[in-house]
Amino acid sequence: MQKYEKYWNIRFLLTLAEKMAYLCANYLNMKQVIVKNISIGDELLIGQVINTNAAWLGARLSDAGFQLYSSLTIGDSEQAIMDALESCTDADLVLVTGGLGPTADDITKPTVCKFFETELEFCQAAYDNVVSIFKRRGFQMSERNRGQAFLPKSCTYVPNTYGTAPCMWLEKKGVVFAFMPGVPFEMKGIFTDELLPRIKERFHAVPYEKRVIMTTGIGESFLADKIKDWEDNLPTFLSLAYLPQHGMVRLRLSGSHEDAVLLHETLDKEITKLLALISEYVFAMEDVPIERAVFDLLINKGLTFASAESCTGGNIAHVITLIPGSSEVFKGTAVTYATPMKTKILAVPAETIERYGVVSQQVVEDMAKGVRNLMEADFGLATTGVAGPSGGTEENPVGTVWIAVASADGVVSKRYNFGKDRENVISRATIMAYEMLRQQILSE
Amino acid sequence: MQKYEKYWNIRFLLTLAEKMAYLCANYLNMKQVIVKNISIGDELLIGQVINTNAAWLGARLSDAGFQLYSSLTIGDSEQAIMDALESCTDADLVLVTGGLGPTADDITKPTVCKFFETELEFCQAAYDNVVSIFKRRGFQMSERNRGQAFLPKSCTYVPNTYGTAPCMWLEKKGVVFAFMPGVPFEMKGIFTDELLPRIKERFHAVPYEKRVIMTTGIGESFLADKIKDWEDNLPTFLSLAYLPQHGMVRLRLSGSHEDAVLLHETLDKEITKLLALISEYVFAMEDVPIERAVFDLLINKGLTFASAESCTGGNIAHVITLIPGSSEVFKGTAVTYATPMKTKILAVPAETIERYGVVSQQVVEDMAKGVRNLMEADFGLATTGVAGPSGGTEENPVGTVWIAVASADGVVSKRYNFGKDRENVISRATIMAYEMLRQQILSE
Repeated sequence: MQKYEKYWNIRFLLTLAEKMAYLCANYLNMKQVIVKNISIGDELLIGQVINTNAAWLGARLSDAGFQLYSSLTIGDSEQAIMDALESCTDADLVLVTGGLGPTADDITKPTVCKFFETELEFCQAAYDNVVSIFKRRGFQMSERNRGQAFLPKSCTYVPNTYGTAPCMWLEKKGVVFAFMPGVPFEMKGIFTDELLPRIKERFHAVPYEKRVIMTTGIGESFLADKIKDWEDNLPTFLSLAYLPQHGMVRLRLSGSHEDAVLLHETLDKEITKLLALISEYVFAMEDVPIERAVFDLLINKGLTFASAESCTGGNIAHVITLIPGSSEVFKGTAVTYATPMKTKILAVPAETIERYGVVSQQVVEDMAKGVRNLMEADFGLATTGVAGPSGGTEENPVGTVWIAVASADGVVSKRYNFGKDRENVISRATIMAYEMLRQQILSE
Repeated sequence: MQKYEKYWNIRFLLTLAEKMAYLCANYLNMKQVIVKNISIGDELLIGQVINTNAAWLGARLSDAGFQLYSSLTIGDSEQAIMDALESCTDADLVLVTGGLGPTADDITKPTVCKFFETELEFCQAAYDNVVSIFKRRGFQMSERNRGQAFLPKSCTYVPNTYGTAPCMWLEKKGVVFAFMPGVPFEMKGIFTDELLPRIKERFHAVPYEKRVIMTTGIGESFLADKIKDWEDNLPTFLSLAYLPQHGMVRLRLSGSHEDAVLLHETLDKEITKLLALISEYVFAMEDVPIERAVFDLLINKGLTFASAESCTGGNIAHVITLIPGSSEVFKGTAVTYATPMKTKILAVPAETIERYGVVSQQVVEDMAKGVRNLMEADFGLATTGVAGPSGGTEENPVGTVWIAVASADGVVSKRYNFGKDRENVISRATIMAYEMLRQQILSE
């Protein structure tokens, strides 16, 4: 009996110790990890290259339960790099991209040495990596590439199997600095394969979750008025953001909470309430472009479409074919930029073009019907318009676009004006064409 | 005589004073204006939206003789905005974008008031602007939109004819802060129409000039070795950067100098020397995509092309039709995503497809010839391949792409592998197709 009592005591103490350790760990870890990003490169500041790395890193970090606090872009100058590193010493983790290529414009490594008060030394593992990459590509190695194997003494070398630039992990006063090359393809590979696992091991992630609702056909202010009461009564750990873009408004409801289950269930509940208020404007329940919503609809219904594009110039085809498996729903496009091709390929009667003009309801409807027949598709989608900057007339000013959808039931068409900027006209006409196609699929 | 002498003295003194004033002004202005950018928006940090505003502002600033020193992206939080504004007090000019929409996620204006120690007041001009925009669009105004007319007391209201969000110009301890909405279309309009003229009036621009040389067919390290001696001997006010991307390397030679003529002439001289070293790799002397170089060549020679796209899915057509006036050189495209369409539209014999497979030299060559005939163009450009992620075989793994160019002289074709990422395969195949077309045009 005594033996049992003892055993029970030990078990009780162990359980208690375990609970306390868990609570302590939780307490210590409750603080949100502060992650900052620095992007290095003159090309980013003079606008020659758009910084897509920062957005990509931000998205991957939130998915993993970390929040990017800020993202700073600076040029290739020692002073700027030193200042930027210094400005991040209040963070827990600093992700630096860029400035690690083989050419002379890269001054990052010497500056890193200065900041960490260390010097460069030869790293055999980094050298072997450079050698193997050159071997794989069948190129000869230059002295410059050998230089890429020199790394700050105090750094941990992180393998980069995607390129010759090294990835480095350094610490200073408890702050972790990870340096990655700026080439997006390499950065993405290293971050996914090597850095993220190390970060997850080192830092405590607070569960984060977001939901995105895609709406169309209602402006930002009106949407806000419709959902005001709901929004005002959201739990404090959730927040709502409006992201208007090209005739759509994305709504993002997101939050962080130590209790992932509670977070998930609360989001479910709030989204259900939200949908009851605005369902007629919602085209997708995830952050996808409208062509993705159309793709999903067509896949589900086993239907296909083809397009005949004039002013959109192949963009309708381009965006759908970015989706893997699009060949299941998309038969093809005929970009009939030259007017006679509308007759030759799409069988639009020459006299219709002559009589009504290329930018007209009659022509766009004939194009939609023509491509539906030609490509043997369930739906034919057609555009004709004036993308600009020249070619506008009084009747059809720049930005005028006719869109038509043909189906077994007949053809619907509508005239729009999408403003004066060529890229904008092409992009908005593409989105609206997919929206018209979506409405047509739903109505059948 | 005395009269003349006096006159001469006055003229001399006036000239002297003018010279001194000029020198003083120059001395005072010699300092480079420090311009910083802050972008506000959670959507930028979680990667839902890529920050294109920063790059656009950077490009416009350098064109105007100002250099962007840094660009900081932060979330919609009072603390982050306050810290960011504080971190920019060492600049001369701070351009802030984002956080000025009508909905509740925007907390910028109250924070601006806190930073500038002022409060919001009703601004009639801003109100009139909101009213006129709603009138133009035919929408009714909500209370929320009226709220957009409340601005910090000490600010100068800058008109925004592009949208309802206000643009504000404030100063603190000699630093100018300009706040713009984050919607790219509005930001670009306001900056061009209103802000840039004010900035030019207020600050002295140091002449800046850049030249861009586009190369293809040589790697970054080898290019660097070829031009090392030239690069090492560049004047100190010029600098060279390498920007590798998708089988191309962009070289940027740039500099700032008070003497714009000297700067321009030195760049001319150095570019001539550079071209002598690498001319065989150069496809353009300005920062343009390769389709632009092809467009210019075709315009000059009065020739046309058409494309038949399978794996590139309309992207060849999409990129050329972004160029205004592309209808002069581009007849159209046939995206024959569905295999039977290759026979029906492009007249590729069904037995050729049967015998060699869709991804084959025979099919791509027939596609190129077929579209050249169909569209009555001088050149036919065709692609067929496996963009992935599925559909690969042992013979044709994912990333395999055949490209062909047909002309009156016959047809040339080549097989490539562009890796495993679908978007990357589409993008690289498009670039390579244009490079093959360019070579073909040059060889005729």
